[in-house]
Amino acid sequence: MATSPSAKRQKSSKDVPYELIYWPGVPGRGEHVRLLLEEAGAEYTDTAHIEDGMKTVLAQIDGKNLGDEHNIPPLAPPILKHGDLIISQTPNILLYLGPRLGLAPKISEDDDGIYHVNGLALTALDGLSNEAHDTHHPIATGLYYNDQKEESKRKAKDYIANRLPKFLGYFERVLKSKPSGEGPWLYGGSLTYADLVLFQCVDGLKFAFPKALKRLEGSGDYKAVFELYDAAKERPKIKEYLGSERRQKYSEGIYRHYPELDEE
Amino acid sequence: MATSPSAKRQKSSKDVPYELIYWPGVPGRGEHVRLLLEEAGAEYTDTAHIEDGMKTVLAQIDGKNLGDEHNIPPLAPPILKHGDLIISQTPNILLYLGPRLGLAPKISEDDDGIYHVNGLALTALDGLSNEAHDTHHPIATGLYYNDQKEESKRKAKDYIANRLPKFLGYFERVLKSKPSGEGPWLYGGSLTYADLVLFQCVDGLKFAFPKALKRLEGSGDYKAVFELYDAAKERPKIKEYLGSERRQKYSEGIYRHYPELDEE
Repeated sequence: MATSPSAKRQKSSKDVPYELIYWPGVPGRGEHVRLLLEEAGAEYTDTAHIEDGMKTVLAQIDGKNLGDEHNIPPLAPPILKHGDLIISQTPNILLYLGPRLGLAPKISEDDDGIYHVNGLALTALDGLSNEAHDTHHPIATGLYYNDQKEESKRKAKDYIANRLPKFLGYFERVLKSKPSGEGPWLYGGSLTYADLVLFQCVDGLKFAFPKALKRLEGSGDYKAVFELYDAAKERPKIKEYLGSERRQKYSEGIYRHYPELDEE
Repeated sequence: MATSPSAKRQKSSKDVPYELIYWPGVPGRGEHVRLLLEEAGAEYTDTAHIEDGMKTVLAQIDGKNLGDEHNIPPLAPPILKHGDLIISQTPNILLYLGPRLGLAPKISEDDDGIYHVNGLALTALDGLSNEAHDTHHPIATGLYYNDQKEESKRKAKDYIANRLPKFLGYFERVLKSKPSGEGPWLYGGSLTYADLVLFQCVDGLKFAFPKALKRLEGSGDYKAVFELYDAAKERPKIKEYLGSERRQKYSEGIYRHYPELDEE
């Protein structure tokens, strides 16, 4: 495929703010998108803070939405609108934004760095976000937590014992690899969006499983991961954002704190 | 980040076959990579068919592997080696290969088509591969199916009743959208790797849940999805591949057939 329905059209339409379309009320998967935009100081709107923002989300994911001339319909938020482009899927939105916001290598035939950054983001989202979500919804996303509480306890126990060390250990190893470079970041010696994804995952895990995370941090086995977390949190723009009203509180989203799912 | 540890190095090293590094014995997630390479008639090697291929997989994912000067270590297969580039994560490998093999729009500032194709691939992998896997491993990937059989029955029932219609219905809707274009394919009127991903997911689901899939196909609600499946299966190179020894049989991988998890 040489050209596509998206070819040669948006260039003139892209000198506009980014529009994040995501559920109001929880940080959720939209938070990964927000952190990129905030770190870059990009202009953006956010349905979480717009009156009737929920209506915008619901219109996008309506089963009757067939997209438009250029855009296929999205299945679920987060959704990013930029000019006349509308895309969905968290790692896909990050892939689009990262190079544009200076938070990933440019995509070019001379540089394959983006595939390392994208791979890291996908791995963090798989193991430290999607699987963390599944600890409180192992049977069905359409059922209440209380309807799958016993299964959740079993899954959370395994998650803390086996999966968290596996994924945190992996990122610790990446941070010790040569391409990580000097300093606290995962790839290339400078901040990329993969670092912001990992920061948000660890932050969510600290909320969901405070006892387990405290023990894991105290073990010293994931020293570089927690140093990355601290370094990201201290970035001036991230710090300002986290203290602002724009940062929403954790509640009934991806990361939930049920004491019975944490370790004792 | 303007340049990266991956910048300006592989160009001369890329006139070599692709190397797929994946578990021998199951189609698994590696199958998505194989289908792109087969459709494109690309030269590649596959650890599934190389003596001691398993050793190559295990060396890559060894907890002591720190990657090399240019490449971070991978966490899990599938892994793609191309010249001196080594990357992992299924959708990431597909993103790398797709435009190179003519199975996706080129990544450029003039064309955002790749973000639609990547989004479609991610959605199919989420809902029709990862979730399908979780129907037989809802509690822990490290436990046997028999140790989570009751939970699996509950999850599979919900998956068939709610998740399959949701995802198949979504792809049906995309196929009716304008950017899908004429013909059986998801995006832009010509075959992209998102079509091959959806084909493989439906094929795996037909193996895992034959009764449910027969009913869903018979309902006529997902007519375009099953037409896409048939059209992909009849592509000359795909057809030849599926009949060859290179195509491995389903067994204990992502898609497993346990009659008690299918509908009655």
